[in-house]
Amino acid sequence: MLPLSVHHSEHPTRTDLPRVIALVDRKIEAFIDSRGFPPNLHDAIIYSVLGGGKRLRPALAWYSSLACGGSGDDSAQAGIAAELIHAFSLVHDDLPAMDDDDLRRGRPTLHKHTNEPLAILAGDAMLSLAYEAAQEHEDDQIAHRLSAELAQGTRAMIVGQVYDTLGGLPDDASPEEQLELIHRNKTGALLTASCRMGAICARASDRQLELITQYAQAIGLQFQVVDDLLDIEGSPEQVGKALGKDAAAGKLTYPGALGVEQSRLIVDKLAESASQSLDELEQSTTGSIEPLRDLGRLLTTRKQ
Amino acid sequence: MLPLSVHHSEHPTRTDLPRVIALVDRKIEAFIDSRGFPPNLHDAIIYSVLGGGKRLRPALAWYSSLACGGSGDDSAQAGIAAELIHAFSLVHDDLPAMDDDDLRRGRPTLHKHTNEPLAILAGDAMLSLAYEAAQEHEDDQIAHRLSAELAQGTRAMIVGQVYDTLGGLPDDASPEEQLELIHRNKTGALLTASCRMGAICARASDRQLELITQYAQAIGLQFQVVDDLLDIEGSPEQVGKALGKDAAAGKLTYPGALGVEQSRLIVDKLAESASQSLDELEQSTTGSIEPLRDLGRLLTTRKQ
Repeated sequence: MLPLSVHHSEHPTRTDLPRVIALVDRKIEAFIDSRGFPPNLHDAIIYSVLGGGKRLRPALAWYSSLACGGSGDDSAQAGIAAELIHAFSLVHDDLPAMDDDDLRRGRPTLHKHTNEPLAILAGDAMLSLAYEAAQEHEDDQIAHRLSAELAQGTRAMIVGQVYDTLGGLPDDASPEEQLELIHRNKTGALLTASCRMGAICARASDRQLELITQYAQAIGLQFQVVDDLLDIEGSPEQVGKALGKDAAAGKLTYPGALGVEQSRLIVDKLAESASQSLDELEQSTTGSIEPLRDLGRLLTTRKQ
Repeated sequence: MLPLSVHHSEHPTRTDLPRVIALVDRKIEAFIDSRGFPPNLHDAIIYSVLGGGKRLRPALAWYSSLACGGSGDDSAQAGIAAELIHAFSLVHDDLPAMDDDDLRRGRPTLHKHTNEPLAILAGDAMLSLAYEAAQEHEDDQIAHRLSAELAQGTRAMIVGQVYDTLGGLPDDASPEEQLELIHRNKTGALLTASCRMGAICARASDRQLELITQYAQAIGLQFQVVDDLLDIEGSPEQVGKALGKDAAAGKLTYPGALGVEQSRLIVDKLAESASQSLDELEQSTTGSIEPLRDLGRLLTTRKQ
């Protein structure tokens, strides 16, 4: 990987979100640059991974490390891995055969910006690169655990996408159970993996890891309910993509199945559950849980 | 993973190719079954991985293990991983936006058999599953090395596919250099990774690993030249897919660039080089190199 010239003044507390994101972005770019890709593939990957987006997953990894007494920075390989998986999934989800989206993060989707074969292959490359990033953690034992978390999160994410768009859900599940099964897999699992990977990088205790997992599962589901709400209540400028598509496609959504008010109550309940997990974690760590708490709050109003 | 009831009589010498393939297939199936996929995704993966094909990559891993004094069977996780990467690449390469193939191994391609979104997602799942298989090797250190080999092979494979179909090759490369750059990446790297992973599972010495790598690189390129020759000389029944497509698409091929006779000479030269590497390996191993030698010979006449 290329050397990064990081000045101490750049991360005074290591908790400032824009600074964390700027650091992570430079590490992502250096990691991708170091692979020796042909220019067309390289540019497609950079366009997808670094063009917009809020780096929620690397931030979760970073802050989970901090919350468990780590340096934050020690989660960088995990954050790169999680962001690459996220970016790959967006590129493939946007394809004409899938959601057929032209707009993502306020810009043309990759297959519109370049072409469809390159979008398929760049997505594949990003998926594989994520495992490369995880396994290049300097500690082999941690690298091995990161790969296992990444695999779990990625597999669940794909299963969730299948449930959401192609069926395969258990016949006897209620609408609310179906929604939870879709979203705990589709969105929640990778967010959970991001938090767990950050905690693992910080060499968290079993109890700390358990509480981080509870926090992550709560905000992961919350994240999706907020997304469903934004799809019917947000503006394209706010969300950076076409809206109302879920309803138009007759998709099962929280506000669709349970109503807007009930969905908002679920968001509040999940936020409370996440907060309680952090209160408990605070009793068993020397680290700072405030950044993770703030990030959780951010999710109640806005999805990346 | 589900237990396998393997009788000793099933692998008397562990070198018999059909028996090795039958054993590997049962392990692949058990591995996929153990993931708890929804039925549509599960069936799509099984259809792609176990529907036809010769398991060349698991066989190379198995025989490379034997050649370095291993048990063959110790390479099973590596073989599953390599076959999953191979299967994922075929599914994505066959997509309408890519090669747009209707026929593969004498049967409908996955997107024809099911649908395009499921083919994209099943391919993604297989790629991720490959890393799961590698990291589940019982020895963590070996698992870590397998993941690195798999990453190297997969990244190169995707780069080779980009070179072959979307450009990005260095401007100053001659046609023969371009062909080698395409195929050492597109086909050779994963075959090399398969052999190296088998050797690593057998705890090969550095020298053994080097010779296995030389062997693999020679047969890897040979494999592709034979494939190019079959595309113009074979029959659909023999090859199990539509033929003459490379020439029709104006693709750079060995017989196209260098002529059929010159291409056959290259095949012979590469076979000789592979054989010499095995001769040297024979001096530094207690294992059996004959199975690997036989497999190399098989490739001079037929590609899977």
